[in-house]
Amino acid sequence: MDNPFLVEVTRGQLVESRHRGSVSVVDADGGIVLSIGDVDRRVFPRSAVKALQALPLLETGIADKYGLTDEEIALACASHSGEPDHARVAAAMLAKAGRDVSCLECGTHWPMGEAAARQLAASGKTPSALHNNCSGKHAGFICLACGLGDDPRGYVSAGHPVQRRVREALEEITGACHTDDKSGIDGCSIPTYAIPLPSLAFGFARFGTGHGLSGEGKAAAERIRKAVARHPFMVAGTGRFDTKLMEILGERAFVKVGAEGVYCATFPELGYGVALKADDGHARAAEAMMGALALRFLPMSDNEREAVSALAQPVFKNWNGIEVGGIQVSPTLMG
Amino acid sequence: MDNPFLVEVTRGQLVESRHRGSVSVVDADGGIVLSIGDVDRRVFPRSAVKALQALPLLETGIADKYGLTDEEIALACASHSGEPDHARVAAAMLAKAGRDVSCLECGTHWPMGEAAARQLAASGKTPSALHNNCSGKHAGFICLACGLGDDPRGYVSAGHPVQRRVREALEEITGACHTDDKSGIDGCSIPTYAIPLPSLAFGFARFGTGHGLSGEGKAAAERIRKAVARHPFMVAGTGRFDTKLMEILGERAFVKVGAEGVYCATFPELGYGVALKADDGHARAAEAMMGALALRFLPMSDNEREAVSALAQPVFKNWNGIEVGGIQVSPTLMG
Repeated sequence: MDNPFLVEVTRGQLVESRHRGSVSVVDADGGIVLSIGDVDRRVFPRSAVKALQALPLLETGIADKYGLTDEEIALACASHSGEPDHARVAAAMLAKAGRDVSCLECGTHWPMGEAAARQLAASGKTPSALHNNCSGKHAGFICLACGLGDDPRGYVSAGHPVQRRVREALEEITGACHTDDKSGIDGCSIPTYAIPLPSLAFGFARFGTGHGLSGEGKAAAERIRKAVARHPFMVAGTGRFDTKLMEILGERAFVKVGAEGVYCATFPELGYGVALKADDGHARAAEAMMGALALRFLPMSDNEREAVSALAQPVFKNWNGIEVGGIQVSPTLMG
Repeated sequence: MDNPFLVEVTRGQLVESRHRGSVSVVDADGGIVLSIGDVDRRVFPRSAVKALQALPLLETGIADKYGLTDEEIALACASHSGEPDHARVAAAMLAKAGRDVSCLECGTHWPMGEAAARQLAASGKTPSALHNNCSGKHAGFICLACGLGDDPRGYVSAGHPVQRRVREALEEITGACHTDDKSGIDGCSIPTYAIPLPSLAFGFARFGTGHGLSGEGKAAAERIRKAVARHPFMVAGTGRFDTKLMEILGERAFVKVGAEGVYCATFPELGYGVALKADDGHARAAEAMMGALALRFLPMSDNEREAVSALAQPVFKNWNGIEVGGIQVSPTLMG
């Protein structure tokens, strides 16, 4: 089955590039709200499920044991740009577990945010693992290990108690088996398990509503959603789509990007979960798709609608500020 | 017509993302060597035709009048990474025409090469228009204007004598009309004209062989090809695909990337011109496609084949150096 064209990139009067994709929107009872394209094909959710991977940290009471703040909980769900505040909060999380940067097993890279990378270079420094876009998630994993009395070393391995708990949490909330034969290794070295989009969307519908979750699970999901809504900068960074969308919509939309064109979301007031993938893995397509779904489903004021439209269907300007083209979402998706 | 899948991106045992595209390989008589997908759809060649846009600078004798070196001629065809040597050579070209950076109308951006951007920031400096990836092409345009006795101001406009000559050169070598209704504005503010891939490929077959060109045109094409083969660093930069491929293959392959997944090339010893586009505009797909075509058509030693294969079908490692997946080209393309 060929996925349809969902996003067009124009230049002048012509379509320059086109993106295909698939979309699943599901309610908390598992009812299909919207299905576009081949949604049965398994996809690696990558970083789009970081909020679900953070559930055990809250459900076990360890976040409270260490007194994690809302900023820190938001950073545990982040693919951040490596700005100074992101690195600072990651270090604070590790300190609460009595650990430091040397425990991080995510690897080191220059800040994902280009301005942050240049700022770090201009200060004469080089990056540490705290600047890795996943450092908050990993700091959360280390808190989980230490809080449970486990040795955090090797916490990225599938067999470590941390990853076993994370996998169980993902299986429980999505209802999908996370099997070794459908697994891969993520950029930050932890396992990632390919599952169909409707299972992902179902997991996010439950994350957004608490339906079908235990009391601890429901409270954990709510705490994470509220923490991120209060600190949308922490989950992404300056100028990033997730940060900007949640700055506009607050608790009404929880959205999280993953690598390779995956996006997940929940719109709690509607009880919907969303999962989508751009076939080609292009982030600009996935962002446009997610923005379009927010516009399609969520009631918004005129000002909100204008702001979200500018995110979903941006205009391209060149280095001289001349308008040269833009991104348009197909009516199939926009509804 | 749906373009076929030509490139797959894998993670673990699964295909994570897929790219479709179209390809045209044509000989210098216009004979079709290979045609994949919808090649009649017009595409903006963007920076892939910079070498053809540089022809008037050579054909008019102005490159010789100003004593442009091979490095400078190569930079006139570049989408460079903004490394110090690129900026230095662009400034030298302008000086030969009695001008300086203030004449550049390409706009200013931080170096496209991330390491170069950090290096510039670490030195406490900010970028100038010399760091714009198109600065060499624009310096060439300014040399052309000054050499012809025209005022260079406004040289980026479609109506300026420079752009009129560039458009005529493109029309002559490709045989395709460059019409205003199929035009757009490129990232560096000059016009770009959408034409079909076979016309682009035909232009590059003639660029590679000189067939059908005037004496001046043939000499200009040969001079550009040899200049780039001697200085492949100048047309791209450290670690870039074009630079690495031409370091391996020398004069046997002239390749040039364009934005939005376009690539053009000529394999002079075969008399072939190549033009391709990844539907979604992803550079990784276009690079894999171009690498595959080089492997398919060009005779190579075992060492060369191994090196080009590593460019065409790279293995992905994560931040910890763990192999997590890679890029594979489809048999349709690899032949």
